[in-house]
Amino acid sequence: MKKFVNDPKQFVPEMLRGIALANPGSLRYVPAYNLIMRADAPRDDKVSVLQGSGSGHEPAHVMIVGKGMLDAACPGDVFAAPPVDYVLETTKLLRSEKGVLHIVNNYTGDGMAFEMGRELAEAEGINVATVVVNDDVAVQDSTYTVGRRGVAGNFFVIKAVGAAAEAGAGLDDLVALGERVNAVTRTMGMALTSCTPPAKGSPLFELGDDEMEMGVGIHGEPGRSRERLASANEIVDALVEAVVTDLPFQRGDAVALMINGLGATPISELYLLYGRAHEQLEGRGIQVGKSYVGEYCTSLDMAGCSVTLVRLDDQLVSLLDEPAEVAIRTF
Amino acid sequence: MKKFVNDPKQFVPEMLRGIALANPGSLRYVPAYNLIMRADAPRDDKVSVLQGSGSGHEPAHVMIVGKGMLDAACPGDVFAAPPVDYVLETTKLLRSEKGVLHIVNNYTGDGMAFEMGRELAEAEGINVATVVVNDDVAVQDSTYTVGRRGVAGNFFVIKAVGAAAEAGAGLDDLVALGERVNAVTRTMGMALTSCTPPAKGSPLFELGDDEMEMGVGIHGEPGRSRERLASANEIVDALVEAVVTDLPFQRGDAVALMINGLGATPISELYLLYGRAHEQLEGRGIQVGKSYVGEYCTSLDMAGCSVTLVRLDDQLVSLLDEPAEVAIRTF
Repeated sequence: MKKFVNDPKQFVPEMLRGIALANPGSLRYVPAYNLIMRADAPRDDKVSVLQGSGSGHEPAHVMIVGKGMLDAACPGDVFAAPPVDYVLETTKLLRSEKGVLHIVNNYTGDGMAFEMGRELAEAEGINVATVVVNDDVAVQDSTYTVGRRGVAGNFFVIKAVGAAAEAGAGLDDLVALGERVNAVTRTMGMALTSCTPPAKGSPLFELGDDEMEMGVGIHGEPGRSRERLASANEIVDALVEAVVTDLPFQRGDAVALMINGLGATPISELYLLYGRAHEQLEGRGIQVGKSYVGEYCTSLDMAGCSVTLVRLDDQLVSLLDEPAEVAIRTF
Repeated sequence: MKKFVNDPKQFVPEMLRGIALANPGSLRYVPAYNLIMRADAPRDDKVSVLQGSGSGHEPAHVMIVGKGMLDAACPGDVFAAPPVDYVLETTKLLRSEKGVLHIVNNYTGDGMAFEMGRELAEAEGINVATVVVNDDVAVQDSTYTVGRRGVAGNFFVIKAVGAAAEAGAGLDDLVALGERVNAVTRTMGMALTSCTPPAKGSPLFELGDDEMEMGVGIHGEPGRSRERLASANEIVDALVEAVVTDLPFQRGDAVALMINGLGATPISELYLLYGRAHEQLEGRGIQVGKSYVGEYCTSLDMAGCSVTLVRLDDQLVSLLDEPAEVAIRTF
């Protein structure tokens, strides 16, 4: 296993400690719940926005805690939902007069943990609401999911909701906004390679030297098809076609286009993919209004990418344009 | 070769086109010279800051063109110095009353291209100066270098010089500043895996499953030693020891600490490494004043990392704190 690891059981805590040490003024780390939270949260004039899924998808979500994004994230271990007590205790720590919003990717384990955590928190008098993200068009049901999976598109839900929460929006309005963004967001990904969880020490699935997995999930779940390795353009064209035809996005639409790397793909390759996707969309009469290229939601050290499109409107553009202060944008 | 590539010869132009399409308002792309430049450059009230090395190190340097950083970058092909005419024509396009500064990593090919390009530009009446970066402590001479190599530490030279140039500093002052930052900056890297240039299609060097290369160069050049794979902590400790003892950094120093990924290492692992490095430095009485974790100077799809330390003073902190607007920090 060619990874930077000490004890695999300490992989997540050691990563979280690093995040905390790198951001001493702005973030607080609570080891008991794998919790990274804003040092200035909770605030009673603002809904607290919380996301917790498995680890292994960084920067999602522990590295996008900050002003204008998440107030907290309490991930489980690698590719594992957080235990219920993480959700409950984090919700209690984030308790605000205006309420607490849980943003949950649609996986069975995450859904159960957050539903139970929410019920327990409500029993303590905390006002909690939930937005479920399910942007992945690849498959209807999957290994860990009934219905569609939540993947990189959750960035847009978090960004929009985070900006609106910062501006003082109430809990009901944030739920409506989050659901509205999720409803116009579509993603599909693909893998060139498998990924290796530290505790397993070997690849999660096998993929031949001349194979790729189209529609792969971010935990290595099977996608639509195992195919022969293709050129960058052929791959992008297939992903764009799958995403565009799903909503469908139509001539005259303005969109945000995200090319997301899955963990081991260099940013040079992501920009190469971006160029092709941008041209394909413009060729279909779909205007690219905002661009995102880089790693947003990864699958450990998987080489691969996903394409996300979001149909833009004026309100969404202005929320996406709001500043965000997160740990990982230091230049 | 598991990469996103079409024609390997078009790898760099296709990446550059992607950068341009993703940043239509702020960047200009001149295909003839692999040139990415600020759309508002040159300005006669500001020295133009130019960097051009090989491609394959992204985000260095085409993705760090922007306000407060570089005015332009004109890279060669993957791991190849830019041709002299790229340097000359870029310098002419960036011509400013206040002069043009070339920041050059210390490699023989880059040095020759920039020296000749500078002479030709001076013959046309352009005022040009050069800062050479050589922060890599691993080896004295190397495959492509007489003296020490320039690696991820060049980010700090660019950031400081870029901020000072934005504030109106003159050419001589920028040279002095760049040399001063370079003089207090030290880096060492290591590889868990090799990397695969698109045109070669196979790994640049061989590294066994249980081996790592300590002190590796960013073009896969040999380092100090080929060693048996070690734990994350052992690796960081060795890199920190090599870097600290070189300047040397001393008890009471305040430093910027950068953990740089070499292209295929997930950011989760980089933060794990960061935590250990931070603690090791504090244990030596060296205070970490600024933190940088992510990819700054890569080697295609190499899994690995480098550790950079910069001795801080008040002026340098304030230059590093200045805002920078670059293509790749979209959140």
